[in-house]
Amino acid sequence: MPVGGTSPLELKAISGVRIGTASAGISQTHRDDLTLFELAEQTRVAAVFTNNKFCAAPVTLAKKHLSLTTPRYLLINSGNANAGLGDAGIQAAQLCCNELAKAVGFKETQVLPFSTGVIGEPLPVEKLVGGLQTAVDTLSEKNWSKAAQAIMTTDTCEKGCSRSINLEGVEVTVTGIAKGSGMIKPDMATMLSYIATDMPISKALLEQMLKEAVDLSFNRITVDGDTSTNDAVVLMATAMADVAPLDATADPRYSLILSAIQEVCYFLAEAIVRDGEGATKLIKIQVEQAQSQHDAKEVAYTVAHSPLVKTAFFASDPNWGRILAAIGRADIERLDVENVSIYLADTCIVKNGQRYAGYTEEQGQQAMNQEEILVRICLAQGDYSATVLTCDLSYDYVKINAEYRS
Amino acid sequence: MPVGGTSPLELKAISGVRIGTASAGISQTHRDDLTLFELAEQTRVAAVFTNNKFCAAPVTLAKKHLSLTTPRYLLINSGNANAGLGDAGIQAAQLCCNELAKAVGFKETQVLPFSTGVIGEPLPVEKLVGGLQTAVDTLSEKNWSKAAQAIMTTDTCEKGCSRSINLEGVEVTVTGIAKGSGMIKPDMATMLSYIATDMPISKALLEQMLKEAVDLSFNRITVDGDTSTNDAVVLMATAMADVAPLDATADPRYSLILSAIQEVCYFLAEAIVRDGEGATKLIKIQVEQAQSQHDAKEVAYTVAHSPLVKTAFFASDPNWGRILAAIGRADIERLDVENVSIYLADTCIVKNGQRYAGYTEEQGQQAMNQEEILVRICLAQGDYSATVLTCDLSYDYVKINAEYRS
Repeated sequence: MPVGGTSPLELKAISGVRIGTASAGISQTHRDDLTLFELAEQTRVAAVFTNNKFCAAPVTLAKKHLSLTTPRYLLINSGNANAGLGDAGIQAAQLCCNELAKAVGFKETQVLPFSTGVIGEPLPVEKLVGGLQTAVDTLSEKNWSKAAQAIMTTDTCEKGCSRSINLEGVEVTVTGIAKGSGMIKPDMATMLSYIATDMPISKALLEQMLKEAVDLSFNRITVDGDTSTNDAVVLMATAMADVAPLDATADPRYSLILSAIQEVCYFLAEAIVRDGEGATKLIKIQVEQAQSQHDAKEVAYTVAHSPLVKTAFFASDPNWGRILAAIGRADIERLDVENVSIYLADTCIVKNGQRYAGYTEEQGQQAMNQEEILVRICLAQGDYSATVLTCDLSYDYVKINAEYRS
Repeated sequence: MPVGGTSPLELKAISGVRIGTASAGISQTHRDDLTLFELAEQTRVAAVFTNNKFCAAPVTLAKKHLSLTTPRYLLINSGNANAGLGDAGIQAAQLCCNELAKAVGFKETQVLPFSTGVIGEPLPVEKLVGGLQTAVDTLSEKNWSKAAQAIMTTDTCEKGCSRSINLEGVEVTVTGIAKGSGMIKPDMATMLSYIATDMPISKALLEQMLKEAVDLSFNRITVDGDTSTNDAVVLMATAMADVAPLDATADPRYSLILSAIQEVCYFLAEAIVRDGEGATKLIKIQVEQAQSQHDAKEVAYTVAHSPLVKTAFFASDPNWGRILAAIGRADIERLDVENVSIYLADTCIVKNGQRYAGYTEEQGQQAMNQEEILVRICLAQGDYSATVLTCDLSYDYVKINAEYRS
């Protein structure tokens, strides 16, 4: 169960995007593990991928295909990452693209492949190919929720979100889905996300909007500090909405549509942290008044990655000494220890680098008992701030990751 | 129980070092929590301290006293870190030094204070001072093991080690003790260590030897990546052995005595990891053929800190994909993915950046079932290597850190 519970997804269809799913037997459980996106002809596609140097075969291939032509299909499997397999992995991904291309009558370079699951096991190509026809046969604009389920691995719930805005009487929609729970950290993680809008947007602008949205959402979450070999976020614009094309940031509609995309990305990123492996609490680390953007992020991540801080949150223990110690070891140029203040929600626990005189353990306990906690760290050294989302470290994190694969 | 079990400490006395202990009631358990070292007059003392910017009051004071004069006493309490308390913490530490100085007839600057335990709770000065007389009354050369126990916090066993060498018919001895289990990472952690030798060594040389020994021992271990506010390692040379003073690295005895000190430091550092909070396995990450020392260390630490890698070791799961993914996200300039090989002990699991053809899960399983595991990562990019010691991440890590304080 994710922090904050679940509610059924109400995802709006995006004209120009059809989705099919199939149970190909790649995942060890009997459920859909194959997802196919079909994109209308004029769709523009932007994507960002993992920075991990051991990127998976499908990442290499998807990047290549995206640089060659405009994609018409996204082919996603869960249950196997097709990573760490060298040339054999590339060939396997290529074969899947080829088979799909044959089935739908397009070129294999118009297919972007994605995989998520166990690293280092050969991709069961035959099984995957065996599921393609079902995925094609089930293509429908209504399958966003099914896709949100089919891309899951250790996720405990599907993640999706829609936002609509009204542009001069025309409703324009953004719908996105995502998967990911462990291995989440900046520069993305075992995380896949697919976001589409019917707004007509030029490719250059689409790429810029994706970067802006990802930087403040998927790149600001962390569960365990690990980064995956397979991460990808794809933003698609089908141009099916009956409005004039968007191709300049000066267009007043730019910020409206960017906001909608950002909201969807932020919602999905937060949903991933809420579903963090074993998470019982959602923790927002907000660093304020830092000397630089780097310092603000560095302090926020050092606190967010500290296993001692994370276990204290799991135990609802207002052990602010652990937060203090994490701030103190952050790799920043200068820290004015005597300026640092720390708040748990509205409760001041550290003022001017030491325990706040008015602080009581009861206040701290009350703040820690909440399911969603804001940790505000004020450095009083400058004007920069950064916010990072994370979760606590529980028995179940160890359990899930010790048992995954078995 | 530490990895590898325990055996009773056989610690040799060091002429010129007397140790007393007392149960002052600072720790929540009824056991010795106060330790006093008394050093003979001609003793030289070198020390290294935490780099955490929120260093504890006793660290600030010990550094100051050490810069002013030659210490005659070390005063160590467990159960309270006296950290995060601002001026009040400094005053508390000063008061303790003053009271001891009065009791033994020396100046307060000749006392080095040390604390370890909970951060942010006021040091119970009265209790500590109340225990001083007992500590003084029990001073004896034979109390090394008692001291090893009295400095413990979440440690499950005391840690100590002696090495003797024969210099032209005279036996020279090095004895050291240490405490620490969680919060262990480079630049030290909630870690205290006291090492003494009867060898006459100049202060300048002693400082150099301590630095060399610490760099390859205490600075190469990691349990959870956190660094404490209170860490310190102290090296003392009493000059009581009847040999000529050592004051130059060119002296052929230099490398002999340095080796003995290094062995003691390495043994203690390894003992800390073996006793890592919740540890069930000792893991040695050895990175070879890196382009630079920085790269070798960075890769080793990225793997050693990965919660996914650490839980896989706990589960005895040969999930080499997690090791690969950790290497891939290490912050190094260049990684030739196709050159990387990974070995678990003698079992090759990854060759040239991909799963080794001759590797079987059975081999991996067998390697993972061991209590002590060597992970060898060969980058084939240069001549630098680095070794880091760590342990696995278990249910008990979470349990211990969720319950500490309560």
